[in-house]
Amino acid sequence: MNSAEAMDRIFNPASVAVVGASPGKSGQEFLEGLIGYGFEGRIYPINSRGEEVCGQPAYSDIKDVPGPIDYVVCCAPAPAVPGLIRDCAAKGVRAIGLFTAGFSESGSEEGSRLEAEIAHLARSVGVRLIGPNCLGIYNPKLRLTFGYPHPQGVGRVAFMCQSGGNTSYIIRAVGQRGVRFSKAISFGNACDINDGELMEYFAQDPETDVIAAYIEGVRDGPRFRRAVMRAAAAKPVIVHKGGYTPAGAGAAASHTGSLAGSDRVWDELLEAAGAIRVHSLEDLVDMIVTFSLLRPPQGRRVALFGGGGGATVVATDDWDRSGFTLPPIPHAVRKDISGMVTSEAGLILTNPLDLSSFAYSDDFYGLVRRLCQDTAFADLSVIHIGFAQMAWFSETNYSLVVDGLREAAMRMYPEMDRPLALAVQYLVTTWDWQKALQDLQEPCSEVGIPVYYSMASAARAIDRFMRYREWRGVAGGES
Amino acid sequence: MNSAEAMDRIFNPASVAVVGASPGKSGQEFLEGLIGYGFEGRIYPINSRGEEVCGQPAYSDIKDVPGPIDYVVCCAPAPAVPGLIRDCAAKGVRAIGLFTAGFSESGSEEGSRLEAEIAHLARSVGVRLIGPNCLGIYNPKLRLTFGYPHPQGVGRVAFMCQSGGNTSYIIRAVGQRGVRFSKAISFGNACDINDGELMEYFAQDPETDVIAAYIEGVRDGPRFRRAVMRAAAAKPVIVHKGGYTPAGAGAAASHTGSLAGSDRVWDELLEAAGAIRVHSLEDLVDMIVTFSLLRPPQGRRVALFGGGGGATVVATDDWDRSGFTLPPIPHAVRKDISGMVTSEAGLILTNPLDLSSFAYSDDFYGLVRRLCQDTAFADLSVIHIGFAQMAWFSETNYSLVVDGLREAAMRMYPEMDRPLALAVQYLVTTWDWQKALQDLQEPCSEVGIPVYYSMASAARAIDRFMRYREWRGVAGGES
Repeated sequence: MNSAEAMDRIFNPASVAVVGASPGKSGQEFLEGLIGYGFEGRIYPINSRGEEVCGQPAYSDIKDVPGPIDYVVCCAPAPAVPGLIRDCAAKGVRAIGLFTAGFSESGSEEGSRLEAEIAHLARSVGVRLIGPNCLGIYNPKLRLTFGYPHPQGVGRVAFMCQSGGNTSYIIRAVGQRGVRFSKAISFGNACDINDGELMEYFAQDPETDVIAAYIEGVRDGPRFRRAVMRAAAAKPVIVHKGGYTPAGAGAAASHTGSLAGSDRVWDELLEAAGAIRVHSLEDLVDMIVTFSLLRPPQGRRVALFGGGGGATVVATDDWDRSGFTLPPIPHAVRKDISGMVTSEAGLILTNPLDLSSFAYSDDFYGLVRRLCQDTAFADLSVIHIGFAQMAWFSETNYSLVVDGLREAAMRMYPEMDRPLALAVQYLVTTWDWQKALQDLQEPCSEVGIPVYYSMASAARAIDRFMRYREWRGVAGGES
Repeated sequence: MNSAEAMDRIFNPASVAVVGASPGKSGQEFLEGLIGYGFEGRIYPINSRGEEVCGQPAYSDIKDVPGPIDYVVCCAPAPAVPGLIRDCAAKGVRAIGLFTAGFSESGSEEGSRLEAEIAHLARSVGVRLIGPNCLGIYNPKLRLTFGYPHPQGVGRVAFMCQSGGNTSYIIRAVGQRGVRFSKAISFGNACDINDGELMEYFAQDPETDVIAAYIEGVRDGPRFRRAVMRAAAAKPVIVHKGGYTPAGAGAAASHTGSLAGSDRVWDELLEAAGAIRVHSLEDLVDMIVTFSLLRPPQGRRVALFGGGGGATVVATDDWDRSGFTLPPIPHAVRKDISGMVTSEAGLILTNPLDLSSFAYSDDFYGLVRRLCQDTAFADLSVIHIGFAQMAWFSETNYSLVVDGLREAAMRMYPEMDRPLALAVQYLVTTWDWQKALQDLQEPCSEVGIPVYYSMASAARAIDRFMRYREWRGVAGGES
């Protein structure tokens, strides 16, 4: 069995035991996650008193479990971990995900010593460790999770992340925008399974098309360097280096015991590899959404349809600054859409097209259809919607717009062959508007339209995507 | 009467007529805004048929209105404007806000000619024009508005904006975060009352402490230059120049007929004046919130309290990058709060402090109180809350956190003498979480705590604020 096969087996357990699954403790949260998300394999709660938890009987010791156990989630205290590793070896367990903290991240000599000890012990008895100080494996194919609610369904993005909270955040934030995962892993202090090994695995994983990573510090620099070079040559790799500032490096040390490494070295490595570096979780989300969902534009001509005259000026700045051009709307399209206008305010049939002029149209769907299907003049269409920039927007108005756009998205997008993106400006005053925008955004995300939360972030993300494709030599070419 | 007095009278009309207030037309929207917002003066709907609108009788001609009219909102078509100006002069009207479009922004020779004609005519008959192609005056003191819903209540920010939609956006977005206005004006093509005159007025306006501006192009460069130099010497001036890219300048020309001017010239002018330049509406909102609400920190030592281990690393990068330092939490505070912890996960009593360790505390209020009241070790405290970064967050957990923080904000903040800010990460998956965050954010905003939507944007905005104060020579000094 090669290392990829071994890692495949770790990510695909048929049975999971949760050690420390006592009522009211963290282990119960893991258990609730597995049950709530619908894990397909066997689940064994373990707690020292053999106390029933989540309505399930528990074993008081892992050795008492009758069947085989592939994966163990460990919530036991740090001093109990060495004994558990030995018991797991005896039981034939493939890997232990150590939620347990109090190792090198504590900054204490004892913590570091214990971490070295468990790493050595695990190697000697043939059990792999994830963590410690982590949440472990998320594999939606098996409905294996550590958190809940997480989106159902399988996708083609792999996420490797040292922080448990950031893993949860990315799964949720990206999931909300229609992206699903092949696998994700929160791997904490990385005392055994580490960044380099995971990057190698995802590079060759046939279930993974895009690799995203949040890394606070690498454990084996040369291995990681080789792995990221190989991975980025094979598929898009998006990296957020947490702790890239001096103070951030200190925070990373006390979070995952990481040696952060020089920011410049990271810049050079990721640029040499052709990986995409981001500096915030928001940008990480935007890049995952873009690489997962955006149909590749053949060029940088963009057609913008958005709400409000001032908004169109601001949006034009956003896209120009990001290196896009805005071709004029052809005469035939202008002619057709001018008949759909009822506005009394300034009507400007230019690109960007101010959709607020059409807010009262009784055929908003027909308008969007005419605009987006006939965009031979552009390589990409982006619709911008944010009610706060429309001075008057009654419930009737925004229902018309939302219903029209949703209808257009649901009916038209699957049959379109052109790239389309949506920028939804959520942060507006009224709760009703936010709800209406969510009613629009979610179906668009589900149908696969990349959704952004501002025109500026959409322009930045799509520019990064285009630059990546230009670097790969595929711009304007195959998708 | 000097020019400030004259402008005061324009911003404070005792009576308003809406010309073109026909059922189902834009004039009706203005009328509904005035009625809904509760305008204190007389309101006269005017439409050619004298048709009842919004349950109010209308006059068919402005000349038929029995009493005096101070301010006219004009929704009549462009060719009718010269006649209206003459009628207004006869009636003693001070100013006309021209919603009417179809002037220089149309790009037609006829539009530009008509705009020059009405400007000349208005000057010769002594009526001032706002616009054309704009929404006009917002004065919450009189409950005078063009849009609805807008926040009730008076504040000390003046906003001058060429775009109607952007005026609505800023009033709403900033209002949602607890800021209120002295006055705002959407002034469109600025054929008469222009940027320079408005800047002069707000510079001396005793009701205004902070001036914000969205400008696509100035009408009288030298006057604007003098005005902004004088204004920025007197109070903070925050400027978003719309159309700062070549393509954006083109969009500005067709939006408000503006000649955009060189981006470099704007940079030089605003830097020389000491004005704060921003490049997005989101940043404009953040800067208005900061200058209006943030208690001036005495230095750059920041104490961060936030949710999730990975979130603290990311937050540290955000604040380090923006030039802040993170002092350690003093022993006495660590001792007190360590007793409040129930977490089994890694507990790190460092700065940033990971509040997720305290999510199960039954005295979250006490914890926040202890943290924020004893922050002699820092110049500024920032609390960061975003549920998506917490792996497990049941309804009980987030209610505890939200209730604790809200209680702390409402009870403690008015008596605290130290700066506090809140970063609320709205864009998370579940609707319930968003609602819970709004239930937290709104009372915090109402009590005057500056709220941001990410740690990164908070750090950037407060850095800009500190740099402004350093430039003014008041850093660490008076507020």
